[in-house]
Amino acid sequence: MKKLLTDPILLVASPSANPDVRYITGFSAPDPVVVLCSGKNIHLVVSALEYSRAVRETSGLKIHTPESLRLDPAKKRDVVAWAIALLKSNRHRRVRVPWDFSAGIASKLQKENIRCEVIEGPVFPQRAVKTAKEIECLREAQRAAVRAMSAACRRIRNASVNSRGLLCEGRKVITSEDLQRFIDKVLLEDNCATESTIASCGKQSADPHGHGIGPLRANEPIVIDIYPKHKGHGYFGDLTRTVVKGKPSAKVAAMHRAVKSAQADALNRVRAGVRASDIHAAVHKTFARHGFQTGILDGFPQGFIHGTGHGVGLAIHEAPSVSTAENILKAGNVITIEPGLYYRDAGGVRIEDTVVVTRTGYEYLCPLRKTIEP
Amino acid sequence: MKKLLTDPILLVASPSANPDVRYITGFSAPDPVVVLCSGKNIHLVVSALEYSRAVRETSGLKIHTPESLRLDPAKKRDVVAWAIALLKSNRHRRVRVPWDFSAGIASKLQKENIRCEVIEGPVFPQRAVKTAKEIECLREAQRAAVRAMSAACRRIRNASVNSRGLLCEGRKVITSEDLQRFIDKVLLEDNCATESTIASCGKQSADPHGHGIGPLRANEPIVIDIYPKHKGHGYFGDLTRTVVKGKPSAKVAAMHRAVKSAQADALNRVRAGVRASDIHAAVHKTFARHGFQTGILDGFPQGFIHGTGHGVGLAIHEAPSVSTAENILKAGNVITIEPGLYYRDAGGVRIEDTVVVTRTGYEYLCPLRKTIEP
Repeated sequence: MKKLLTDPILLVASPSANPDVRYITGFSAPDPVVVLCSGKNIHLVVSALEYSRAVRETSGLKIHTPESLRLDPAKKRDVVAWAIALLKSNRHRRVRVPWDFSAGIASKLQKENIRCEVIEGPVFPQRAVKTAKEIECLREAQRAAVRAMSAACRRIRNASVNSRGLLCEGRKVITSEDLQRFIDKVLLEDNCATESTIASCGKQSADPHGHGIGPLRANEPIVIDIYPKHKGHGYFGDLTRTVVKGKPSAKVAAMHRAVKSAQADALNRVRAGVRASDIHAAVHKTFARHGFQTGILDGFPQGFIHGTGHGVGLAIHEAPSVSTAENILKAGNVITIEPGLYYRDAGGVRIEDTVVVTRTGYEYLCPLRKTIEP
Repeated sequence: MKKLLTDPILLVASPSANPDVRYITGFSAPDPVVVLCSGKNIHLVVSALEYSRAVRETSGLKIHTPESLRLDPAKKRDVVAWAIALLKSNRHRRVRVPWDFSAGIASKLQKENIRCEVIEGPVFPQRAVKTAKEIECLREAQRAAVRAMSAACRRIRNASVNSRGLLCEGRKVITSEDLQRFIDKVLLEDNCATESTIASCGKQSADPHGHGIGPLRANEPIVIDIYPKHKGHGYFGDLTRTVVKGKPSAKVAAMHRAVKSAQADALNRVRAGVRASDIHAAVHKTFARHGFQTGILDGFPQGFIHGTGHGVGLAIHEAPSVSTAENILKAGNVITIEPGLYYRDAGGVRIEDTVVVTRTGYEYLCPLRKTIEP
C-alpha cells in the first residue's frame, strides 16, 4: 500500500465540471484536460487554444499541449492520447485514478500497459480543509444566498393573501416558480448561479428534494433552499429557511421549534476533533425529545430522513459528511448543519446554515435570523 | 460482437448531470440512480425518498428501491450495492457500460464476477435523432437565446459612446460582465439558465473560449454566445452573433462578410444523407476564397480554429459532430452551424445558429438576423 501512495494521480476531465481538477490546477474550462500529479509536480495538458489562458490563470504548473508533447496531428483532439504521451514521457506505468475516472479511458490505458488503481474516497483529502482564501470565496457565495433569502422573505412578508388563501401581489398569485426565478435573479446580481432553487410549499415540502410547483399558500410551511455557485471562482454557498405567511398549524410550529433546537444542539457540538456522527446522533436525540418520530410511517420514510450536513466547497456536497459516516471534524472544514423534519400530513421544515469549523467551535459564513415569520 | 450488443446496458449516475440517464428514464434528480436497460425493460433504482416522484414523473419503467431489492439497511445508500442487487436478481453476469462509467464501480462489479464492456461512442445513438417533442423543447431553449440576444443587441444599440470609446449608459460604462449578467437574467424569464455566457470584445474575442472581461468598446467586434439550458426539461439552445457598435475596421468587416457567407454555404449543404465533414470542408473553402488563412500564425492557432458545429440536445455538445469526423446527417438531427474567424490583431467573429436537419434541407429552431450592426 505504501508504494501505491507514491504512484502519480491521473485526472482526465473538464475543469468546470470536475472539482478535483479545478482545485488542483486553479484552471477552469469546459473542455477536458489531463492532469498528472507526480511528486511535487503538477502537469496540465490543454489544447493549443487554451494554452495562453492556462499560463495566465494558473501558477506553479507544468503546462503542455498536444503539440509540445509531439503528438501526431491526427491525435491532437484525443485526450487519451494526451494522457498516454504524458505518462510515457514521464515513464509512469502505474497511476492512481479517482473513483469516477472514465472506465473507457482506464481500459485504453490498460492496453498501453499502464495500470490504473482506483482511489477509494477523496482524491485530494486536503480539499476538505479550506484555506483562508477559499473561506472568503465560500463566504462570498453564502452572502449571495443570504441576500437572496432575505429578498425572498421580504417578498413573502409583503404579499397579500386572497380569498382562497393564496399569496398574491395585487391580483397576481405568487407561485413556487415565481419565487425560484426571483431568487435566481437576485443571485445573478452577486455573480452567482444555481442549477435549481427549492421553494416548496405545504405538503409538497414533505419531499426534501421536491423543488415546488404552483401557488404559495398562507398558513403552510414554505421551505426555501438556496445553493448558489459563484460564476467566477466556482465555490458554493448553501442556506435553507422555512417560513409561514400567516399562522402555522400547531404541528408545523412545533416542528419549527424542534428543528431550530436541533440545529442549535448540533452547532453547539461543532468544533475540531469532534466525531461528525455524534453531531448527527444528537439531532436524532433532540427530535425524539421533542416527540418527533423517524422511520417508515404509513409506508413512507418520514421524520428526520436525511443527514445532518455535508462539506461545501467547489462541490455542493463534499467531505466531510455529517451523518452516520465516521469523520472527525477538522479546523477549516466548511460544513452545513441542516436538520429537518418531514411529515406527509404537514409538510417539511428545514433550517440550514453553512459554518466554518474552528479549534473551539464554529463561525457562520454569513448569519441570518431563523424565525418562522418571513 | 453480435452477442455483446444484446448484453444489458448499466448506468450509475445523477440524472441531472448525466444526459443519457435523463434521456432514457425521463427522470431528473441530483442524487445518483441506477439504470439497467435489458431488452425492452428499463429498470430504475432510486432511494425511497425519490420513489413517489419517480413513479409520478416517468412512465414505462420498472422502478425499484433499495428496500424493494431487499438490501441490507446498511447498504441502502450504496448505489453500487443497488446495481449488484439488480443485476443479480436479473441473473446478468455481463453488462455494457458507457465510456464515462465510473472505474471504481467497474472494479467493484468485477469483484462480484460481473464483467463490464465499455461502449465506444454514444450509449443511445438514437439520442442524435430528435423526436417532435424533443424539437419543441430545443426550440423553447433556442427562443430564450434569441430573446436574450435581441435584448443584448438592443442594449448595445441604445448605448452611447464616451470620449474614451467605451460603451455607456448615462455615465456608467457597460462591461462584458454587465452584459453577461443582463443576458442571464433575460434567460431566467424564460426559465433557462446557463453555466456561462460569452460577451467578449475586441482582441479578447480572438479566444473562442474566453468569456470576456472589462469595458465594451465601440468600433470593435463583440462576440455574444448564449447557450441556455431549460430548467424544466433540460434541453439546450445555442446561438452566437458578432456585432460592432460604430464602425468596424476593414478587416473585421471583411471577416464578418466571410463568416456570414461561410455559414450560408454550410447551411446550403445541410440535409439528411450528407457527410458532415463535407460541410466542414466547405467552410474551410469559403474562408480560403475570402482570403482568410488558418494555421499556426506567429506561433498561435489563428483563422478558423474549431469545428463547424455539433449536435445539441440534453447536452450542449453531443452527436453528431460537424467537423472532420465521419458522420452522415440524419433527418431529426439538431445541430449548430457556427463558422468563425479568429485573429490576434483583430479579434473574433462567429455566427452560430441551431437548426433541425430535414430530408430536403434544414429548419431554424428560431431565426434571427445576422447583421454586424447590433
